[in-house]
Amino acid sequence: MPNKKKNNDNNGNSFDRFEIRLSGSGGQGLVLGGVMLSEALATVDGKNVVQTQSYGPEARGGASRTDLVVSDGEIFYPKPMALDLLLAMTQESCDLYVGALKEGGLLVYDSHLVTQVPYTNAIGIEFTQLARQEIGIPIMANVISLGAICALTGIVSEKGLREVVKRRAPRGTEEKNMAALEVGLKVGREAKKRIAV
Amino acid sequence: MPNKKKNNDNNGNSFDRFEIRLSGSGGQGLVLGGVMLSEALATVDGKNVVQTQSYGPEARGGASRTDLVVSDGEIFYPKPMALDLLLAMTQESCDLYVGALKEGGLLVYDSHLVTQVPYTNAIGIEFTQLARQEIGIPIMANVISLGAICALTGIVSEKGLREVVKRRAPRGTEEKNMAALEVGLKVGREAKKRIAV
Repeated sequence: MPNKKKNNDNNGNSFDRFEIRLSGSGGQGLVLGGVMLSEALATVDGKNVVQTQSYGPEARGGASRTDLVVSDGEIFYPKPMALDLLLAMTQESCDLYVGALKEGGLLVYDSHLVTQVPYTNAIGIEFTQLARQEIGIPIMANVISLGAICALTGIVSEKGLREVVKRRAPRGTEEKNMAALEVGLKVGREAKKRIAV
Repeated sequence: MPNKKKNNDNNGNSFDRFEIRLSGSGGQGLVLGGVMLSEALATVDGKNVVQTQSYGPEARGGASRTDLVVSDGEIFYPKPMALDLLLAMTQESCDLYVGALKEGGLLVYDSHLVTQVPYTNAIGIEFTQLARQEIGIPIMANVISLGAICALTGIVSEKGLREVVKRRAPRGTEEKNMAALEVGLKVGREAKKRIAV
């Protein structure tokens, strides 16, 4: 059986289990985003992570998702049971997975692509629009979302993300990926101020 | 509990469960290789796939692995129990995981990097040397290995791999990735003839 759940404590404090789902459509770079997040958590922040992609009928319909279970201890049960954080980059993925959030879990969504939000603890950011306008490459919405998740939740260190995004970026795209990360950190911090008031 | 296991039947026949581990060191492109293989299996061949990366102390030491469970039916248990196929791209990963093969499972290894092979049902191919000599990019050993796995096991269709490798290749590297896949298919077919005699 899984570890007992505790709340996540931001910025380096210990926690037993934190569950993340990154969801949207194929071509939005969510799997690579999840690999970057997992590697930052594991190789820089010292967490244990199990990342899972399930490919079934939804994948054939174009949907894409990746799940991360993060812990300071051993991870006995690799599937998410109740999400602490859901990233929804399409309306379809939002509708499909919002029910998997635990009570008080956080929904982060692309506010241009997700227009019906059936959940209150939710933060909308125009990830794809920002990627297009600030970076010039829509798919870099994935890295912008990682920066926002970092600023909003503190689950991963900025240092970890910077190291791994640089290392994992396809050759020749390092600078744009790093710029996308900074955009995400900035909009995440701004969004956090809004909800903290 | 998981499905009852049956043997894999090559080339499109039905099977209940087939377990694959791709293992080596970070920077060998194994996770992306696994994503390509999963997508080919799921979106072209119509299989269900669960792909898992576990990041723990080994990841911090530089080791990398990704696991695929493939089935025609529902996958109830997402972790591998006894591998049908192990790809070992380093001696360390070979030593670490060879014991996870089921009886009669197949070990495919990089014959330049893995020199001690403690297992008989094993096929060595110089993936990294081939990538360097034939393609000019050592990391494309990952795609060469996918081609070889296809030719050796028939678990995935050539059509599926061709579609997905092209789609998933980082922009500007499509041609080299497709060439790497063809190298892998060719050496896989040759290796299969050797063991069939």
